[in-house]
Amino acid sequence: MARVTIKDIAIAANVSAMTVSNVINARTSKASPDTVERINEAIRTLGYQPNLSARALASKASRLIGVVVPFTEDQNQLLLDNPFYAEVISGIESALRARGYFMMLSGLGETSNEVDVLAQWNVDALIAIGIYREGLFERLRKRHLPTLLVDSYLTDDHVHHLRIADDQAARRATEHLIAHGHRRIALVTGAVRDGGVIEQRLAGYRLALDAADIPFDPDLVLAGSVTFDWGIDAAEQLIARRATAAFCTADLIAAGVLSGLHQRDIDIPGDISVLGFDNLPVSQMVYPALSTVDQAILDKGKLAGNLVLDLLEGRKPPRETRLEARIIERQSVGPVRK
Amino acid sequence: MARVTIKDIAIAANVSAMTVSNVINARTSKASPDTVERINEAIRTLGYQPNLSARALASKASRLIGVVVPFTEDQNQLLLDNPFYAEVISGIESALRARGYFMMLSGLGETSNEVDVLAQWNVDALIAIGIYREGLFERLRKRHLPTLLVDSYLTDDHVHHLRIADDQAARRATEHLIAHGHRRIALVTGAVRDGGVIEQRLAGYRLALDAADIPFDPDLVLAGSVTFDWGIDAAEQLIARRATAAFCTADLIAAGVLSGLHQRDIDIPGDISVLGFDNLPVSQMVYPALSTVDQAILDKGKLAGNLVLDLLEGRKPPRETRLEARIIERQSVGPVRK
Repeated sequence: MARVTIKDIAIAANVSAMTVSNVINARTSKASPDTVERINEAIRTLGYQPNLSARALASKASRLIGVVVPFTEDQNQLLLDNPFYAEVISGIESALRARGYFMMLSGLGETSNEVDVLAQWNVDALIAIGIYREGLFERLRKRHLPTLLVDSYLTDDHVHHLRIADDQAARRATEHLIAHGHRRIALVTGAVRDGGVIEQRLAGYRLALDAADIPFDPDLVLAGSVTFDWGIDAAEQLIARRATAAFCTADLIAAGVLSGLHQRDIDIPGDISVLGFDNLPVSQMVYPALSTVDQAILDKGKLAGNLVLDLLEGRKPPRETRLEARIIERQSVGPVRK
Repeated sequence: MARVTIKDIAIAANVSAMTVSNVINARTSKASPDTVERINEAIRTLGYQPNLSARALASKASRLIGVVVPFTEDQNQLLLDNPFYAEVISGIESALRARGYFMMLSGLGETSNEVDVLAQWNVDALIAIGIYREGLFERLRKRHLPTLLVDSYLTDDHVHHLRIADDQAARRATEHLIAHGHRRIALVTGAVRDGGVIEQRLAGYRLALDAADIPFDPDLVLAGSVTFDWGIDAAEQLIARRATAAFCTADLIAAGVLSGLHQRDIDIPGDISVLGFDNLPVSQMVYPALSTVDQAILDKGKLAGNLVLDLLEGRKPPRETRLEARIIERQSVGPVRK
């Protein structure tokens, strides 16, 4: 199954390899129309493919953009089973494709050296989604790769950032629940980590409570993981701590909370209101349909693709791009129970 | 931001470019230990990355596997918003990475020429998920690329196949509903297309009905698209056609059916039983939790990755691999209403 070479085409078309090369590289003025036609016919028949690796080497551009996604913590697999990542990546891929680039998608663990390998594979630029160890950025800096971080708050002069205004979004979400008369509002969330979005959302939640003169109660911060299963477990704690509303920092968690509350015959939103974050497709599929914070994930992915290409092509995009989020009202939030 | 070259290393280490090249390519016996150390120091300081494109050219292997996913029909984006694809791709990526390969992920439309471009990018092999026009396979054949099709029934001597035993799985699913006393069982599905899985599942559904002496009623085949929205619409037709059970050929459709039935205050499974297909994470998140056909999607993706590498590495995997599916009982199927 050897690849068809220029030499094979030359033999089939009965011309020199140089002539074939000229035609392939659009220097057709040097060959007669008849010769061009014969060569094109041979290319079609034999299925020749110009070697873009060679072209990439010549131009020092691969038109390949590396996209890295963190592994799940307990499994050696991509986080695509979190639908948030899948949707961001869909957006990135379509933006890259529209501008003639390809996406190389790879997982990246906390301790792995995939970044070195990715960089070696001659990618032109990198998009990293989520948060990683600081050491990663140390290595990236040495690579001189244009790099866009999505949803990271790690500061580094080398990289560009795309994120939503997480603190504002969380503040508005909490205010939305307060406006429905709730005062015992739990924050159900993943692990709070330095440089992560959750730290910012916690800050926004506290600002909203402060503004409404509701004392912050650490017992109402339920931090676990960004999973459906954690939501199920958290439901029990919501009841035990007499929360009347839960602001979940991910729809995946909120879906688990709904499921856990159903198991305990709690009415939603009659007994407990639940607000999500992300506006994933699943937020429409659960029952009752989930009120949530829309962060327009697909558009965010497209913007990430366009920003990294702007950076690569020297168009100097802003170092930080912050998107606004808005609340989508469905059926899972209601007035506080009297 | 020019890349660091061998020449830069040579200047920093005060040796010839040839010496640097020898050290980088592990021909270190030609250089003194002191020189090797000086060169490695320069490599660390300057952040040199060996150009694997050049290596790929030399070895004619890129270690890059192309994975193509169909576009949505109405939008120019990847089908990753269908969580089935996201999970298969997670599995593929982890299997490829474990064996030292990378994944190039790209969308592929019905009329697009992305396959030509992918092939030109020197990928070693290709995995195509879903079904495409026959013309695609014509072009693939000319590329001489080792190719694995996932979930396609198009026959072609060139390609290898991975799929579940769709007809058997659908037969068992229908029998599961019959065992609960149902006779008016609707099949809610996407468009039935030649060479697609749905054609096979329809056949399995009919076999189960035949075996139970239930006449086939074409009015009970509700074919739309593999979307949540279609499920919502189909719910109304289930009621109008007095179905007591719905076998949905995708969990995404089943989630829509549940939502549509909730909107009309139909009790599940008291009034209508609903059975899904895929065992996506969302099947646990809907209410009631969805009984479904488990096709172990993540494992299927890993197997796809391993099969294509076996093919590439000359290990001659079977031309066709068929997986068994099994029924997962949750809360959405019950005895027929008296």
